[in-house]
Amino acid sequence: MQIDVQLIPSTRLPEDLPSRTVVVFDILRATSVIVQALRQGALEIVPVSTVEEAFQAIKRFGPGTTLLGGERGSRKIEGFDLGNSPGEYNAGTVSGKRVILTTTNGTRAFHLVSTGAAVLAGSFLNAGAVVGECLNQKRDVFLFPSGDEGRFSLEDAVCAGRVIEGILREQRSSCLTDASRAVHALYQRFSKNLKEALTLSTHGRELLSKGLKNDLEFCAQTDMTDLVPVFKEGTLRA
Amino acid sequence: MQIDVQLIPSTRLPEDLPSRTVVVFDILRATSVIVQALRQGALEIVPVSTVEEAFQAIKRFGPGTTLLGGERGSRKIEGFDLGNSPGEYNAGTVSGKRVILTTTNGTRAFHLVSTGAAVLAGSFLNAGAVVGECLNQKRDVFLFPSGDEGRFSLEDAVCAGRVIEGILREQRSSCLTDASRAVHALYQRFSKNLKEALTLSTHGRELLSKGLKNDLEFCAQTDMTDLVPVFKEGTLRA
Repeated sequence: MQIDVQLIPSTRLPEDLPSRTVVVFDILRATSVIVQALRQGALEIVPVSTVEEAFQAIKRFGPGTTLLGGERGSRKIEGFDLGNSPGEYNAGTVSGKRVILTTTNGTRAFHLVSTGAAVLAGSFLNAGAVVGECLNQKRDVFLFPSGDEGRFSLEDAVCAGRVIEGILREQRSSCLTDASRAVHALYQRFSKNLKEALTLSTHGRELLSKGLKNDLEFCAQTDMTDLVPVFKEGTLRA
Repeated sequence: MQIDVQLIPSTRLPEDLPSRTVVVFDILRATSVIVQALRQGALEIVPVSTVEEAFQAIKRFGPGTTLLGGERGSRKIEGFDLGNSPGEYNAGTVSGKRVILTTTNGTRAFHLVSTGAAVLAGSFLNAGAVVGECLNQKRDVFLFPSGDEGRFSLEDAVCAGRVIEGILREQRSSCLTDASRAVHALYQRFSKNLKEALTLSTHGRELLSKGLKNDLEFCAQTDMTDLVPVFKEGTLRA
């Protein structure tokens, strides 16, 4: 099994993407929210790239069983039901509902890598389960940290390194690229204190400055669920 | 002082490049060769992107005091005087001579970032001196690991992390981006055994497979010179 990582989120993707298991990471906060919402009983999450697409989509589904969630500039969007804090996605609010989600980085990433053999949502919350699914699939793995508006983001890379650590524990002979070696070393640096990586990162500091400390603490929790969201035909389901 | 790193060698460069000190890294082996050649008394190194340009340039300078050096596929180029092993660039061969150098990654990188306020060649051999020069310049710093044919390379990133470590020791308040934080953490992981980073890297393993172990050992040496090559008007001088 070969494991590669896209260090910088870009549209230049490997040609063999259709034969790889792809994992998208947007720790702060899209993929953490997706895991949490499905864990709390949401039917499905529909990630869309723009606010306009979100409003179009809710017309299609009708508002009764569908909620609008997401952020721009880390803030809830006007006219939306939910922001991008995992704590908002509790069973009382999302159980049995579809959520249309649009965020600055993560929701776009799913559409970018949609040609992968399987496309999973990864976070610290479900990292161990993502490792298990990558091993089950028995394909080469392509990890896609979705970054921060086209830039590298520390917290997404550290989580990609966590998945590499898990795969290596089971399959020591896995083949690493220089990029996957680097994010693995990065995970090792922060493994004893993941919250440190989140509070050092540019995006983490931005969230802290906006009073969203609880979100950081939530997203730094590890292996609280076995749920692995899979992106297929435009929607994420458990 | 802000320090940023281009994790993936690309043509998408920061807009404020003309106000930054830029350091190019191609540890295996172009920037190590450049440092070694100048240290051994070469007059100047003229980095060119293609083999054709190298043959054009030697016509311009005349062959008497000018040598052709470089590689393609890690091998010496037909008709060239020198390959890309630092050991070839000894005083007996290069002292008082100009060297036209073309390599797969490093020599192109200098032309890519040529609009920097100052453009330096960095390697483990002169890392401490590069730190000193970055501090002298009192500008924001842009580190450019030249990578491996458009891909991230471990050894170049680790050396960029070494320069960050040196700057932080003198200026703890320096501002790091997520990318510079990551390569700094990477350097910390390998700082006690730089040769390990070189032998783990894709390009390092390729050189080992071609019997170039001596080159790796040479390039893993730290702070053996105070010489800092500066790229100006198409040429590198001490």
